[in-house]
Amino acid sequence: MEKKPSIEVCLSPALFKFNNIESKNIVVIDVLRATSTICNALHKGATSVIPVENTEDCFRYEGDEYILAGERNGQIAEGFHFGNSPLEYTKEVIEGKTLVLTTTNGTKCLNMAKSARKVIAGSFPNLSIVAADLLKEQRDVILFCAGWKDHFNLEDTLFAGAIIELLKYDFLISDDSGFAARQLYVNSADHIYDVIRHSSHFKRLSQFGVFDDIEFCLTADLAPVLPVLNNNHHLENKLKE
Amino acid sequence: MEKKPSIEVCLSPALFKFNNIESKNIVVIDVLRATSTICNALHKGATSVIPVENTEDCFRYEGDEYILAGERNGQIAEGFHFGNSPLEYTKEVIEGKTLVLTTTNGTKCLNMAKSARKVIAGSFPNLSIVAADLLKEQRDVILFCAGWKDHFNLEDTLFAGAIIELLKYDFLISDDSGFAARQLYVNSADHIYDVIRHSSHFKRLSQFGVFDDIEFCLTADLAPVLPVLNNNHHLENKLKE
Repeated sequence: MEKKPSIEVCLSPALFKFNNIESKNIVVIDVLRATSTICNALHKGATSVIPVENTEDCFRYEGDEYILAGERNGQIAEGFHFGNSPLEYTKEVIEGKTLVLTTTNGTKCLNMAKSARKVIAGSFPNLSIVAADLLKEQRDVILFCAGWKDHFNLEDTLFAGAIIELLKYDFLISDDSGFAARQLYVNSADHIYDVIRHSSHFKRLSQFGVFDDIEFCLTADLAPVLPVLNNNHHLENKLKE
Repeated sequence: MEKKPSIEVCLSPALFKFNNIESKNIVVIDVLRATSTICNALHKGATSVIPVENTEDCFRYEGDEYILAGERNGQIAEGFHFGNSPLEYTKEVIEGKTLVLTTTNGTKCLNMAKSARKVIAGSFPNLSIVAADLLKEQRDVILFCAGWKDHFNLEDTLFAGAIIELLKYDFLISDDSGFAARQLYVNSADHIYDVIRHSSHFKRLSQFGVFDDIEFCLTADLAPVLPVLNNNHHLENKLKE
């Protein structure tokens, strides 16, 4: 019997260092909202998305081809016109442009994962595409939840669980966090918006009234793209190839 | 309306540093098996349990009043007659003695939590007693899962969820990990042994054939004691007072 590839879940950036990542495919997950924003920007025609760690690094990109976007603590960061709302990125805004994005959690994790074999940005808007790519590749997978400032969060864990539920017959669930994430997802799949209403990040974001954003971020397959990190630098939609 | 105290869950020792612990009551949880062993030793009449970090520190305790016990990677550590099996500690072995115990995960966490207001060792064998004490105290609580070598584990998280389920009306569940732990527990409460059969630690321990141990560790209220850390040094059963 052929050995199945393994799938595991890292529940916080503070736990990421315990993983061997070099030979694995990593899905970076920041459902609210960085990886949802990346998906929608590429879906609406962005050429690529450059995830950067600091706001200062954003400003190094000059020219009409760049849209600079910064978010800190759920709001548009100082000095930016654009933030981390996926719905900001309409076709009119983003088509043919490069999005340079820095966020509180997600873009940091994309940079942490750089030495992996392959780095994908995943969220509910590209759920099926991500699962299909992992299935096609047949490599060991780490689902890397960005969390909130190193704390566990619910929405990223539920997305990890959704991926595992789709791949459960083809991968070996190799750690307890994978088992738990899948259980949490299976028990809430038919009322996921209600479950997320209990999450700490929902409460944080709902102060800013971004309910349309949250609904977008939690809905499967609205932005069917495959954002893959290229040259350790920018994410491109590899579905086009 | 009076403000409820908060209850939160720390899913791994690697995440513990993000908590402010000084004013809080902490329950250290290592279901398989350190905190279950501590409960049974006190229940069978041990005077106290001294949790120590290193095997060398154990051997500093000399005399007939001490039982020295060491476990590493699930087995009795080199040089010890006793390990981390709760069922080793019958009345004949432990009554009137002090257990000096070092384990892979649990005793480390008891030492990490020392600066908290109060430190309790909790596991299913003392579930109701722990919940009743937290309820009586009305202080903010951290449920500290020992995990396995800094990784998330299922059994400790399920016990945290069981405590939260008992206290849900009296405490504010203040983080996503508390919400997730409770959901996981509620969805598995009636078949908890089956769920734990999927855990990584069950697989690890079952090589050593300790199925009776595991059943004891997962059964509520078999050792109704309240092990509280005293003078940052030893655990005593405070239920007697």
